[in-house]
Amino acid sequence: MKVSIIGVTGYSGIELVRLLLQHPKVDIVSIHSHSQIGKDIDEYLPHLKQLLDLPLEPIDSTKIMERAELVFFATPSGISKEIATAFVEADFPIIDLSGDFRLKADGQYEKWYKNSSAPFDFLQNAHYGLADFYPEPSSKLIANPGCYATGSLLSLAPLVTQKLIETESIIVDAKSGLSGAGKNLSESSHFVNSNENMTLYKMNSHQHIPEIMQQLQRWDKKIPAIQFSTSLIPVTRGIFITTYARSKEKMTQSQLWDIYREFYQEKPFVRVQNQNCYPNLRQVIGSNFCDIGVAYNEVTNMITVVTVLDNLVKGAAGQAVHNLNHLAGWPETTGLKLVPIYP
Amino acid sequence: MKVSIIGVTGYSGIELVRLLLQHPKVDIVSIHSHSQIGKDIDEYLPHLKQLLDLPLEPIDSTKIMERAELVFFATPSGISKEIATAFVEADFPIIDLSGDFRLKADGQYEKWYKNSSAPFDFLQNAHYGLADFYPEPSSKLIANPGCYATGSLLSLAPLVTQKLIETESIIVDAKSGLSGAGKNLSESSHFVNSNENMTLYKMNSHQHIPEIMQQLQRWDKKIPAIQFSTSLIPVTRGIFITTYARSKEKMTQSQLWDIYREFYQEKPFVRVQNQNCYPNLRQVIGSNFCDIGVAYNEVTNMITVVTVLDNLVKGAAGQAVHNLNHLAGWPETTGLKLVPIYP
Amino acid sequence: MKVSIIGVTGYSGIELVRLLLQHPKVDIVSIHSHSQIGKDIDEYLPHLKQLLDLPLEPIDSTKIMERAELVFFATPSGISKEIATAFVEADFPIIDLSGDFRLKADGQYEKWYKNSSAPFDFLQNAHYGLADFYPEPSSKLIANPGCYATGSLLSLAPLVTQKLIETESIIVDAKSGLSGAGKNLSESSHFVNSNENMTLYKMNSHQHIPEIMQQLQRWDKKIPAIQFSTSLIPVTRGIFITTYARSKEKMTQSQLWDIYREFYQEKPFVRVQNQNCYPNLRQVIGSNFCDIGVAYNEVTNMITVVTVLDNLVKGAAGQAVHNLNHLAGWPETTGLKLVPIYP
Amino acid sequence: MKVSIIGVTGYSGIELVRLLLQHPKVDIVSIHSHSQIGKDIDEYLPHLKQLLDLPLEPIDSTKIMERAELVFFATPSGISKEIATAFVEADFPIIDLSGDFRLKADGQYEKWYKNSSAPFDFLQNAHYGLADFYPEPSSKLIANPGCYATGSLLSLAPLVTQKLIETESIIVDAKSGLSGAGKNLSESSHFVNSNENMTLYKMNSHQHIPEIMQQLQRWDKKIPAIQFSTSLIPVTRGIFITTYARSKEKMTQSQLWDIYREFYQEKPFVRVQNQNCYPNLRQVIGSNFCDIGVAYNEVTNMITVVTVLDNLVKGAAGQAVHNLNHLAGWPETTGLKLVPIYP
Repeated sequence: MKVSIIGVTGYSGIELVRLLLQHPKVDIVSIHSHSQIGKDIDEYLPHLKQLLDLPLEPIDSTKIMERAELVFFATPSGISKEIATAFVEADFPIIDLSGDFRLKADGQYEKWYKNSSAPFDFLQNAHYGLADFYPEPSSKLIANPGCYATGSLLSLAPLVTQKLIETESIIVDAKSGLSGAGKNLSESSHFVNSNENMTLYKMNSHQHIPEIMQQLQRWDKKIPAIQFSTSLIPVTRGIFITTYARSKEKMTQSQLWDIYREFYQEKPFVRVQNQNCYPNLRQVIGSNFCDIGVAYNEVTNMITVVTVLDNLVKGAAGQAVHNLNHLAGWPETTGLKLVPIYP
Repeated sequence: MKVSIIGVTGYSGIELVRLLLQHPKVDIVSIHSHSQIGKDIDEYLPHLKQLLDLPLEPIDSTKIMERAELVFFATPSGISKEIATAFVEADFPIIDLSGDFRLKADGQYEKWYKNSSAPFDFLQNAHYGLADFYPEPSSKLIANPGCYATGSLLSLAPLVTQKLIETESIIVDAKSGLSGAGKNLSESSHFVNSNENMTLYKMNSHQHIPEIMQQLQRWDKKIPAIQFSTSLIPVTRGIFITTYARSKEKMTQSQLWDIYREFYQEKPFVRVQNQNCYPNLRQVIGSNFCDIGVAYNEVTNMITVVTVLDNLVKGAAGQAVHNLNHLAGWPETTGLKLVPIYP
Repeated sequence: MKVSIIGVTGYSGIELVRLLLQHPKVDIVSIHSHSQIGKDIDEYLPHLKQLLDLPLEPIDSTKIMERAELVFFATPSGISKEIATAFVEADFPIIDLSGDFRLKADGQYEKWYKNSSAPFDFLQNAHYGLADFYPEPSSKLIANPGCYATGSLLSLAPLVTQKLIETESIIVDAKSGLSGAGKNLSESSHFVNSNENMTLYKMNSHQHIPEIMQQLQRWDKKIPAIQFSTSLIPVTRGIFITTYARSKEKMTQSQLWDIYREFYQEKPFVRVQNQNCYPNLRQVIGSNFCDIGVAYNEVTNMITVVTVLDNLVKGAAGQAVHNLNHLAGWPETTGLKLVPIYP
Repeated sequence: MKVSIIGVTGYSGIELVRLLLQHPKVDIVSIHSHSQIGKDIDEYLPHLKQLLDLPLEPIDSTKIMERAELVFFATPSGISKEIATAFVEADFPIIDLSGDFRLKADGQYEKWYKNSSAPFDFLQNAHYGLADFYPEPSSKLIANPGCYATGSLLSLAPLVTQKLIETESIIVDAKSGLSGAGKNLSESSHFVNSNENMTLYKMNSHQHIPEIMQQLQRWDKKIPAIQFSTSLIPVTRGIFITTYARSKEKMTQSQLWDIYREFYQEKPFVRVQNQNCYPNLRQVIGSNFCDIGVAYNEVTNMITVVTVLDNLVKGAAGQAVHNLNHLAGWPETTGLKLVPIYP
């Protein structure tokens, strides 16, 4: 399948290149950007020298649709909705890695993204591609989930779908590496500010909150809200999420573990750890795995879920390829048998 | 005042040296260790060259009491209780940085430290030196609080003492740099394992849980338990604690902030941040400050407290000096006007 | 081809697993270690969960030769020479990643490794597998080059083979990440000691000095010695080498660049950078590339060569696979078209 | 003494505040900046909360000279020369931390800084404040040396002043942490680009080259040039310099060490390490020390000097205070007995 990538110079776009170059069924036929037009990609991204011999092109939907069979939008939120129209009207397959097509309820995008949303029918039509759960996309416009949303939802899915927890008790304490903050220069991503440091940002206002709520309520309408925090830790890649929720009933550590193990045993990219084992961040980096460990506290009746994923793979480009595999009807692990890079 | 340090080669001991060398009222007269005996300290710790011209000596309580007026135990838990007897019996002032004299209830030390405790009357007699709250030590045997305990208690004090939160709702998600894991070599503190990584450890079993509970219940007997997690982040120094608790009543962000500001306005080492500002880890490193920011979430009725401190200063050596100042009757900031080292 | 890996739990062994799992012509049939025998590898290395379903076995040369067609030794120096005998005597193919079979001159191994060497005829028979230069191994016992040696030799090859520099003027200032120090716990690899730090180690005594000299003199007997330093920098992977040498003749920056570009244009794993561009360490991590930039200083008549490689790939497991490809007669890039992981 | 700081929000300015707040003879009476005027400094730099209760003021030379007795310029190169005139004409004491007054030879500043220089007579009049060597400033306009220059000159002083090395053989391979690149946002100081990375920058063109040469030639006119490289390593603070030079005569390791030890024995801020010991970067951080280790290679006849310093202290603010002490006639260690912060 011939594909094009728009927004190839951002971190998600760069990672898409890495994954697609190793995908047996895909050829990248063109790459597109707002800047650096005409340059060979390796002048801008020297790690790609001798690996991708394509120039950076401007975004021309007609040309892209002539040459490719599917387009990835690895563009920032606010851009995807602007460039999607021509593709959507032509019913051309899109996998969008931004937040522009994820929120369905009227006014939610405006509220959380502080920007006007894509047309309402685009939002309704878009398929929310939580790839471990929806193997058959309902639309050719796929809204690839956010990194924090993916991790939070995979942490909570067994508990929420089976209604095992008190609905008001969910607290998600998420930590992310700096690549999650994107390639734009900012005070918070300046090495001297972020190295040896940790900061909580977007207190009670992160745009993944409504995305998580939308899906949780799809699983259980009674979940009223979640408490959700995001902090930056001084690593390049990776999301580490600690989720807390109170069990409705007393249980045991072993019962809790069985619930997770059974729930995920058919899902190739979710690895429930051995009992009483908790994943570390490094063990998934470079791969499409989401690793999960769970604990039950008899004293407080609280469940703790520890979840790790690579924000650029499982949280972005990897899940996009997973959705591509679903859309194309290939085995879901095609091109995604990535071994984590350790150490 | 002439002081001796036992356990000077551990991280807390090293930091005590740094602070005491800059303290205007103190002279270090001897330093003691289990190993490296006879060596000049700078052979072992080259950063101290030309700064502390003392040899490492074995631990001899008689000699120490002859030369010094107070002794610091910067020894690991399990050691302090072994070496304390002679000093306690002589009513010689001790500031112990380990966990050996913190827990008063029978059986608690055994349960959480997996070791036999100090004599019961030593435990009862010891003063729990949460220095911002107890300016007048009740005993010459001072149990200096743990780093996580200090941060958790300062996070919760305004809420718990004023009974503002639902008593079962407290969740503390604490993150620590690697110096908190001590200088003993281990898999988890091997650079290749901890760099670019994050790990949750001691799930539901950290020994600071009973220490925090003991003090919280001193403030409000109705607090039944807390959910408490500790994770390692790849920095050398610092503890970053995110605490969640549900407010009993609806309030506003501004009211919450006022509560904290007023509660801490007389305490020189606790800096409540400006409203809607949250501290980053780096802004306290090298200093005795504990910086706190607070948020109220109207949707969930949850309070989030973000607290940072330097585990080796406020969480160990700095608080020990603070307790020394209390014991000696000096102004509490004596020798502790340390400017954080930034960047 | 069926292969076995001895020493699979070391960093080179782990990386071999990653590369071989993605190699289209190879099956790993058994993995061997001195410890953890009987465990599934993913209990010990959780990142491999669901990827390599093999138990750790003891080292039994007969069994290995029955099941496999080639064996990798990813063992530390001093071990390989002990376990090699049975395989060598059976003329069974070995690719050894340690230093045990690299030095040919009598007494050199003893001098630099402080240990007795492998049998003299083994050393003479072994093929020094500098894979970019020797596509046809002269023996089934392949001594895979050291990481520093590989980088230093690739830095100097164009200058030394063409006799362009003053023979006494070579200075190699090499910097390595901590994975180069191996997985054994040590003071220098303790996070608190290595983070935010840099240290020069093995001053004038690194065991790669004779290895580099052996090959340089193979290219030009007149090179008498090199000045060679190694320092640890706080990164996990990667070697950054700055090499200095004085040009025999005045030249220009452009001429120097042409020399390198032409010299390496047929070598797929050496990427000479664009003129006046110098590689950064990150641009090769995860890949088998060695990237090189060169500068000529008109004032001092000195050439500076900046070279980067991933010590675990190009400096170990990747070059081992490269040698495997040579030995098996496959195209040299088979299984090695690894895209660097960036960011 | 009452002092003002211009450029207080840059890293050198911030560090000056830290040092001067702990200096027993100095009061900071005003702080000045180009931006953030009117704000309290702790709104901008939260680590200073409750420590420095001064607003940021615009730069007004008349007002400064009314209130203060000396002014520090912690401004970038190119700014100092613009604001100096009024102070110089009033013969008001200035300690300038930028490069604007360091180079005396006509045209050198223009060539290396790509900017027009300060007036020629200002340059001639300025005192180059290499504080370990010049305790009696020749002028009230003090040009504080550059960080790399300080480290390189202290590395080479014993060899050059005593004419022990071949004059053409000097190679300086210097590595710096990111704070050396300043607080301006740039691609190279973006966390995602600099973390886990190393880069050589300003190949053969660093502006400290002429500064080093000027002083070396003051010591020995026969030094024709040096080969000098600068690379960024992923640490916040610190410079690690490896210097190579060929000895004129054969010597021994012990003789070399004696030369350094004797040369520096009276200088309180230069700590020659024990024989065969080499400093690590961390052992000086936060302090005004420059630590040096030396090795002699019998095979190559090369001397290797390993030198570390904190670029913001010894390489900037600390040396500025050292020069202040010289100018004021106070003991040179006044306010500078800073214990390195370790770990």
